[in-house]
Amino acid sequence: MATVVQTVERADPAVIAGLAECGVATVHEAQGRKGLLASYMRPIYPGAQVAASAVTISVPPGDNWMVHVAIEQLRSGDILVLAPTSPCEDGYFGDLLATSARARGGVGLVIDAGVRDVRDLTRMGFPVWSKAISAQGTVKETLGSVNVPIVCAGALVEPGDVIVADDDGVCVVRRTEAAGVLAKARERIAKEEEKRARLAAGELGLDIYDMRGRLKEKGLRYV
Amino acid sequence: MATVVQTVERADPAVIAGLAECGVATVHEAQGRKGLLASYMRPIYPGAQVAASAVTISVPPGDNWMVHVAIEQLRSGDILVLAPTSPCEDGYFGDLLATSARARGGVGLVIDAGVRDVRDLTRMGFPVWSKAISAQGTVKETLGSVNVPIVCAGALVEPGDVIVADDDGVCVVRRTEAAGVLAKARERIAKEEEKRARLAAGELGLDIYDMRGRLKEKGLRYV
Amino acid sequence: MATVVQTVERADPAVIAGLAECGVATVHEAQGRKGLLASYMRPIYPGAQVAASAVTISVPPGDNWMVHVAIEQLRSGDILVLAPTSPCEDGYFGDLLATSARARGGVGLVIDAGVRDVRDLTRMGFPVWSKAISAQGTVKETLGSVNVPIVCAGALVEPGDVIVADDDGVCVVRRTEAAGVLAKARERIAKEEEKRARLAAGELGLDIYDMRGRLKEKGLRYV
Amino acid sequence: MATVVQTVERADPAVIAGLAECGVATVHEAQGRKGLLASYMRPIYPGAQVAASAVTISVPPGDNWMVHVAIEQLRSGDILVLAPTSPCEDGYFGDLLATSARARGGVGLVIDAGVRDVRDLTRMGFPVWSKAISAQGTVKETLGSVNVPIVCAGALVEPGDVIVADDDGVCVVRRTEAAGVLAKARERIAKEEEKRARLAAGELGLDIYDMRGRLKEKGLRYV
Amino acid sequence: MATVVQTVERADPAVIAGLAECGVATVHEAQGRKGLLASYMRPIYPGAQVAASAVTISVPPGDNWMVHVAIEQLRSGDILVLAPTSPCEDGYFGDLLATSARARGGVGLVIDAGVRDVRDLTRMGFPVWSKAISAQGTVKETLGSVNVPIVCAGALVEPGDVIVADDDGVCVVRRTEAAGVLAKARERIAKEEEKRARLAAGELGLDIYDMRGRLKEKGLRYV
Amino acid sequence: MATVVQTVERADPAVIAGLAECGVATVHEAQGRKGLLASYMRPIYPGAQVAASAVTISVPPGDNWMVHVAIEQLRSGDILVLAPTSPCEDGYFGDLLATSARARGGVGLVIDAGVRDVRDLTRMGFPVWSKAISAQGTVKETLGSVNVPIVCAGALVEPGDVIVADDDGVCVVRRTEAAGVLAKARERIAKEEEKRARLAAGELGLDIYDMRGRLKEKGLRYV
Repeated sequence: MATVVQTVERADPAVIAGLAECGVATVHEAQGRKGLLASYMRPIYPGAQVAASAVTISVPPGDNWMVHVAIEQLRSGDILVLAPTSPCEDGYFGDLLATSARARGGVGLVIDAGVRDVRDLTRMGFPVWSKAISAQGTVKETLGSVNVPIVCAGALVEPGDVIVADDDGVCVVRRTEAAGVLAKARERIAKEEEKRARLAAGELGLDIYDMRGRLKEKGLRYV
Repeated sequence: MATVVQTVERADPAVIAGLAECGVATVHEAQGRKGLLASYMRPIYPGAQVAASAVTISVPPGDNWMVHVAIEQLRSGDILVLAPTSPCEDGYFGDLLATSARARGGVGLVIDAGVRDVRDLTRMGFPVWSKAISAQGTVKETLGSVNVPIVCAGALVEPGDVIVADDDGVCVVRRTEAAGVLAKARERIAKEEEKRARLAAGELGLDIYDMRGRLKEKGLRYV
Repeated sequence: MATVVQTVERADPAVIAGLAECGVATVHEAQGRKGLLASYMRPIYPGAQVAASAVTISVPPGDNWMVHVAIEQLRSGDILVLAPTSPCEDGYFGDLLATSARARGGVGLVIDAGVRDVRDLTRMGFPVWSKAISAQGTVKETLGSVNVPIVCAGALVEPGDVIVADDDGVCVVRRTEAAGVLAKARERIAKEEEKRARLAAGELGLDIYDMRGRLKEKGLRYV
Repeated sequence: MATVVQTVERADPAVIAGLAECGVATVHEAQGRKGLLASYMRPIYPGAQVAASAVTISVPPGDNWMVHVAIEQLRSGDILVLAPTSPCEDGYFGDLLATSARARGGVGLVIDAGVRDVRDLTRMGFPVWSKAISAQGTVKETLGSVNVPIVCAGALVEPGDVIVADDDGVCVVRRTEAAGVLAKARERIAKEEEKRARLAAGELGLDIYDMRGRLKEKGLRYV
Repeated sequence: MATVVQTVERADPAVIAGLAECGVATVHEAQGRKGLLASYMRPIYPGAQVAASAVTISVPPGDNWMVHVAIEQLRSGDILVLAPTSPCEDGYFGDLLATSARARGGVGLVIDAGVRDVRDLTRMGFPVWSKAISAQGTVKETLGSVNVPIVCAGALVEPGDVIVADDDGVCVVRRTEAAGVLAKARERIAKEEEKRARLAAGELGLDIYDMRGRLKEKGLRYV
Repeated sequence: MATVVQTVERADPAVIAGLAECGVATVHEAQGRKGLLASYMRPIYPGAQVAASAVTISVPPGDNWMVHVAIEQLRSGDILVLAPTSPCEDGYFGDLLATSARARGGVGLVIDAGVRDVRDLTRMGFPVWSKAISAQGTVKETLGSVNVPIVCAGALVEPGDVIVADDDGVCVVRRTEAAGVLAKARERIAKEEEKRARLAAGELGLDIYDMRGRLKEKGLRYV
């Protein structure tokens, strides 16, 4: 049952780069408000903003053996996405694994569990979004799987899906939908520019979006 | 039932400015240890310290329509204070709304829910205290109310109350008590100056506050 | 029952200094993956890394009287370690107590409860690892104990034990085991240097740690 | 500041009895979906269903002194409603206090903290809705207030308000609104009877509530 | 994007009935320890044990409109499985909806949110596994989808999958794997019978499972 | 480091039986309000009330191998007390292990993790106090220890300590203090009898405990 899938399709690198620029909130909106991981997934340091292809890892609680297996599957521009099979906060990943992942092309980690050596990871500029920061060590006894579909922090992630992550959290985009989502995200950004200027000038959303009539119709009462 | 109250009394701007200088811990003590919002209300970036008049917003879960309505009610020096009618972490507020709020005089947001675009908000220096950071989008379908009394993160907030917020969290001061609280807060600060100096010199609180007798009387045993 | 123990043995200062350099993750591993406090214990600012002898404090919820008593027991290089007798998030400790603790030799605080004045504490460079940040004030009515064994955030801490704390959290080392743990921690660091270099060069953990055979034997399937 | 208010108006006993029969979900709907306490407030045993006038208690964490004070203020048909000034799970209340409360006319307890002796309370048929079950003892050192407005589990409760509680949780009804809410609740129940019969016969809500057109208009797609 | 899928394949009713008899723990083990929903999903009353085909519902927070839509899609022996698009505890479902669901063949509900009227549901013998019990009402304003894949309480559920639920929680079995899982579950039960008898007679697992050698080899030390 | 301690002193069975009769709240008070495990430790069914000698188990997350080892160490009247080395909710224990434990004299389980087969355990009348109910299976790969001191749900438990558990939760009594605690617990019960009668007759705690003077002195104001 423990399986490593070695052939994973990735999205177009240009599309991935485009999604990184758009950021999580915009991408999430552009794809119809889906794909967001739980809000407890927080970056270990502020300011990182990435998009990358998911190499998924399914692991038992307290056992990080499969991380080593997964690192071999990384290609340049990939991100590790790890979910334990039951809730766990242990520190599955630290600076040695980050060094290894980076050497193999990995650009970050999304982990529904704990991470450690966060000072070193911060110095390295290796971004991690995690449920916890914990030095708790793990064992290497029980198999898991690499590059199989997983549920990570409440979201289904399939190998090769595009992960977008920044200070707002983490969002997953289906590989086959990535180009379309990017197009919509860019439209959205373009539209927001104009609105931002009008709002900054003091115009109200009530007027820009023409809300007054509908509010009244629904029964909003001003007193 | 959905109501927007348009006339709200505010406290004296000088009093509000004074409370901002005192900070949350001092103000909370000065008013008899009341008014503190739950400790899960955290600033999205460190270092902000504000006091402002509350424009309150009561909203359904996952629906940010009333934020637009509330922004019209802002006057210079106000802060938006939002509570959903049931627990919700969605990202009700982002950089566009912050741009609009600022243009209308708003100086920040206190939200018992989620906020997004935190990198942009940080760049703008628009402070937010929230329960969560989440990119989750919201709809505009169901009415709520603006400038009615709300319970936000466990504390009753009435429109026009003074919100004091800094790295320690958020505290609410009744509008009519603001001047009195400020006076007591300033007394407290004055007294603390002298104590700080004595403590820094190595004197013990046990002696400064004359605690030894009472500790002994209560039965404290040194071994 | 409320007791202050005045004579506490400390570990060798050189050993303590050595443990500080090793950091939490390494020390935790070196002592057989034990002694870690719960992951909710977070530093109030990033970058602090300390090791120090524990002066323990057992307190009732919402009552910080014994902190004053404990400060008198501090010696240079000690750290206060506080646990309430039932879960509490109140702000037991702020800048005045930090000023006093520092004047008496204290180098920090580990508290399974709340702390306040975090901006001041950050400015002072007085590190605190806490469960919460809260301005909530406390009373001085009920006794507790100082320098007795406590359970703090899930870990047993005895007075004089060595506390190691950094951005990864907090770990406790039994006083009598400190020298041995330091020796093992240094060995571990030495070994990691070489591994880091090999990993950075692109070698895989799978090969460095010779894992392929055992993975195969356990049944890992590559597809 | 610690105050006991001795004169509290109550709602009409017949109205209170009527609200008890309606139950929490119906009352909550009838008053416009407000007044619900947080869902973590759970009954210590199933099956209790009460409505009663609130005698409110504001207490420090870990200190149940004011419960004794509050019991003197009970009149027949009242319920104690307790909120600590900061989060606490201690066991403020057990079988002795229940015996005393009952002897003075009290019919139950709503407590945003812990309760103990739950087996005895169950045997007595003394219903309690609480945040926790905990044997943790409390002290009697610090004053609080009785019959002042409190926020309990996220809801504002004023002395004399009507508390409705059953297996679904706890709801508060403003004293002055109680009669009107009861009228609406009874209307709601009457309407539901007919709907229940139609639904039981296999008719769909889609048809009974005439939803198909609006669903289509909003864009629902059947495939 | 809001879609109702009307054609869903179900597993063989005899297989489903067989899985119900096996119960959650056995089924979960038989399929390789996967498919378990989060442990916070608890039954509203003890003793229910069901297996049924999933009719899935994806809904916005605080909006139960799609439950009405889903009920029309029920066939005899189906169970509703609902997940909100962001965390929500509102009471989406009560006795009227249960009456309707039952009339259309529904045998229960699994909901990663709240449920109300639990006393009525208990009387009806309509089993629900939920995250919360809450009377909080919901609106009918925003579309969602029915019979699309959802992540419910951390587990992927596809329409037509078999849901097994009892006092231990909830487990999902892929429709196409149901027969195989049932076969393995029955094997497991058969084996357990014999072991139970030996254990009841005082034999040790250490001996029955021949563990002593491996424990020694791993280094277990008896003192 | 993985160790099984085979010689454990137990308290006098008559003392243990006496403590069982007193129950958790009384025992906790009698020993000075200490020894309580966290309130999240709940019984899987109501009504069980036990006292027993602790056989402690320290285990890795998700690995129940040592439970088998511990069962061999049980003597008649013992209770298993299990703590994982990091937070875990997996179902370490079910009906087969309960059958085995009972056959060897075990009377229950206290587990800071999950338990499964709760319907069977309830039928057997095998009481369990746990953090979670979860069917999640565990592995048998990594050693732990039996009969070493552990921290379980926030309380230090040493092998041979007396565990008292009932519907209020779980309390630990040091083996050497058990007789003294029993004596004090019985005194407490005797005193409570008389108070209960007076309270039931309508006398107030304010008068029985002579609180009025001290309340006035502290400044309580009646209005």
